[in-house]
Amino acid sequence: MKALDDIRVIDLSHVLAAPFCTMMLADMGAEVIKIEPPSGDDSREFGPFFEPDEKGDEQSGYFVSLNRNKKSTSINLKTEEGKEILRKLIAGADVVVENFRPNTMKKLGFSYEEIKEIKSDIIYCSICGFGHDALPEYATKPAYDMVAQAYSGLMSITGPKGGPPCRVGTSVGDIVAGHQAAIGILSALWHREKTGEGQHVDISMVDGLVSILENAISRYTIKGEVPEPLGTAHPNIAPFQSFPTKDDYIITPIGNDGLWEKFCEAIGKEELVDHPKFKDNRLRCENLDELVSRLEEVMKTKTTEEWIEIFEESGLPYSPLNRIDDVVDDDNINYRNMIEEVEQPDLGKVEVTGSPFKLSKTPGEVETHAPKLGEHNEEVLTELLDYSQQEVEKLKENEVLNEPK
Amino acid sequence: MKALDDIRVIDLSHVLAAPFCTMMLADMGAEVIKIEPPSGDDSREFGPFFEPDEKGDEQSGYFVSLNRNKKSTSINLKTEEGKEILRKLIAGADVVVENFRPNTMKKLGFSYEEIKEIKSDIIYCSICGFGHDALPEYATKPAYDMVAQAYSGLMSITGPKGGPPCRVGTSVGDIVAGHQAAIGILSALWHREKTGEGQHVDISMVDGLVSILENAISRYTIKGEVPEPLGTAHPNIAPFQSFPTKDDYIITPIGNDGLWEKFCEAIGKEELVDHPKFKDNRLRCENLDELVSRLEEVMKTKTTEEWIEIFEESGLPYSPLNRIDDVVDDDNINYRNMIEEVEQPDLGKVEVTGSPFKLSKTPGEVETHAPKLGEHNEEVLTELLDYSQQEVEKLKENEVLNEPK
Repeated sequence: MKALDDIRVIDLSHVLAAPFCTMMLADMGAEVIKIEPPSGDDSREFGPFFEPDEKGDEQSGYFVSLNRNKKSTSINLKTEEGKEILRKLIAGADVVVENFRPNTMKKLGFSYEEIKEIKSDIIYCSICGFGHDALPEYATKPAYDMVAQAYSGLMSITGPKGGPPCRVGTSVGDIVAGHQAAIGILSALWHREKTGEGQHVDISMVDGLVSILENAISRYTIKGEVPEPLGTAHPNIAPFQSFPTKDDYIITPIGNDGLWEKFCEAIGKEELVDHPKFKDNRLRCENLDELVSRLEEVMKTKTTEEWIEIFEESGLPYSPLNRIDDVVDDDNINYRNMIEEVEQPDLGKVEVTGSPFKLSKTPGEVETHAPKLGEHNEEVLTELLDYSQQEVEKLKENEVLNEPK
Repeated sequence: MKALDDIRVIDLSHVLAAPFCTMMLADMGAEVIKIEPPSGDDSREFGPFFEPDEKGDEQSGYFVSLNRNKKSTSINLKTEEGKEILRKLIAGADVVVENFRPNTMKKLGFSYEEIKEIKSDIIYCSICGFGHDALPEYATKPAYDMVAQAYSGLMSITGPKGGPPCRVGTSVGDIVAGHQAAIGILSALWHREKTGEGQHVDISMVDGLVSILENAISRYTIKGEVPEPLGTAHPNIAPFQSFPTKDDYIITPIGNDGLWEKFCEAIGKEELVDHPKFKDNRLRCENLDELVSRLEEVMKTKTTEEWIEIFEESGLPYSPLNRIDDVVDDDNINYRNMIEEVEQPDLGKVEVTGSPFKLSKTPGEVETHAPKLGEHNEEVLTELLDYSQQEVEKLKENEVLNEPK
């Protein structure tokens, strides 16, 4: 039994933001039925690709990692028969999720207003760049993760000190919106349970990133400061950053004066503990440049491994700068099942990221492979919707459905 | 009516990860009762600070923005009377949230095993660095956001190309864990509703960031590539990055060959459309350095404002590089209520980040101010727990509770 195994989600999503949301719901047990166009979710064409199989087909690692645990139907929604299938599916669903540009679902005849005529208590979740309810000039603006990162201000506070702005190395614009969509959907389901009411959950990628800017907004609204990129440094704690070592980097989050004393002892610089320029956090922040250059001198005299041993011994907080290979091979990350194997048809076992939802009774899990395009056409139509085998064949002939591929 | 207004959360959280989680639940209507030590949540001492009030007290902008909509009790949990109050509160609660290091709650006598003796169907959510269920050497390791960013590999793929690793400019280690905690709690509540069972939700900051690494993990597991920082560039789409202009930057997410053609026309470089080195995305990625240096030449000839006009005209995706002041003043971000005012005692109206949960019937909202330390001691004890006024006074005398401050 899983937490959400009585929830059915009709998933009109593509690429990343909404697929990330429905992946989390599927990992928790929801039945997620992906509705793909006959050409498939665009991300089936995104690398990295697995080695070609015997037939020469290359499966997308991008698609595989985001779509485990889901079913795929490929329905031509430009046909009336296709629309009819979707209407029937919605009639039996709890949730609809989509991340087209605003207006696209309306053009297809499946806006929230239209869908609630089919199923009055539906939870309809949209994710787009600037919001469905937005100023007219924003409502249909194209948006990508990169746009959300830049528009929200997040890019302006990420990067080396004094250097160029940098993108966060993963698509947090999509991914934070995907998380917020899941929270919005689960809250709306709770509300429906009490009242019988459905509603529209209108999630914006820009809102999502603005909502996580943390103290950057307050620094501006309270102090008038416009925050800037700080490399790895913390705006008001020091030394709370990375330092180059003899062979790599080490991160030293020295969060208070007690740790500072221990840290100075551990690195053999006892004279800094009560130094008039560094003895408390306020002074260390005021004299940051001098502090950093003094510490850089010391930290580069040993390897990261040597520092780790010293820091472990002293009970100081620290981190190595792990690369992706370190992460995939890490003992504790593997103990937590954050890299999971799934049996992928034509490929055998492949590794995907695990579920971070460690619930003692109903943990999130990777159970089934990412589907081929249209893999569940027949199952969904005949078992959920009572189409006959003959009708399914007819729909294939009419190019409303296609053969799984 | 709000989505979660029948849910009571006992919030033993401090600083950021768990307070972010309970902020989202409170914005959606949950009754969140914060249990602070007599010295208060540490983040009450974190800047930026508002101007001192008449009594010379400085309120923390950091605390105010994360704790709106919550109640505060200050209870000395080192006393038996304090523990008794907490036990009574838990007996009437749906959810307990905490983000101490593993073992701290156990030392206090409030581990999950102990709490479920008080309330068998409690949802108990812990957030820590490496997980409660972790290898012994990880279970009690100190962790901060910075550690999670470095340990998870996210820092290793964020920063300028070839340059030093950078921290994401906001504390995504805490914040992603906070979101996942909320999803875990809401899923567990759904499960409880069906089965009557409570459970332990064990969220790790490192797991959270590993789960959002997106295609970085697949690039390593499939191709053996160890991804590196790329500045603002995308690993396999070009030109999908920022360019310096005459006065600032512009972001050009040119996601496909159709847009490439439009883009070349818009910047007056029609000759590049069918150029043998740049005519499709694969070629543009292969010849990225030459592409970028050619485009840099062009992009720096106009101001960002001039480019925006041209890009708008052509219907091309783009973004300016907004700073935090642009964001706070932005028309659409304000239209979406992402910067909200709240009346803060002794300060008057202050601005905090709004709720990204735009639900048509039960939107997330900022309704009440962040509480003073112990502001709701009397209310909670007399109204929820039936303590008499006299008993409350006695508890104050015995330093179990303190006066609000």
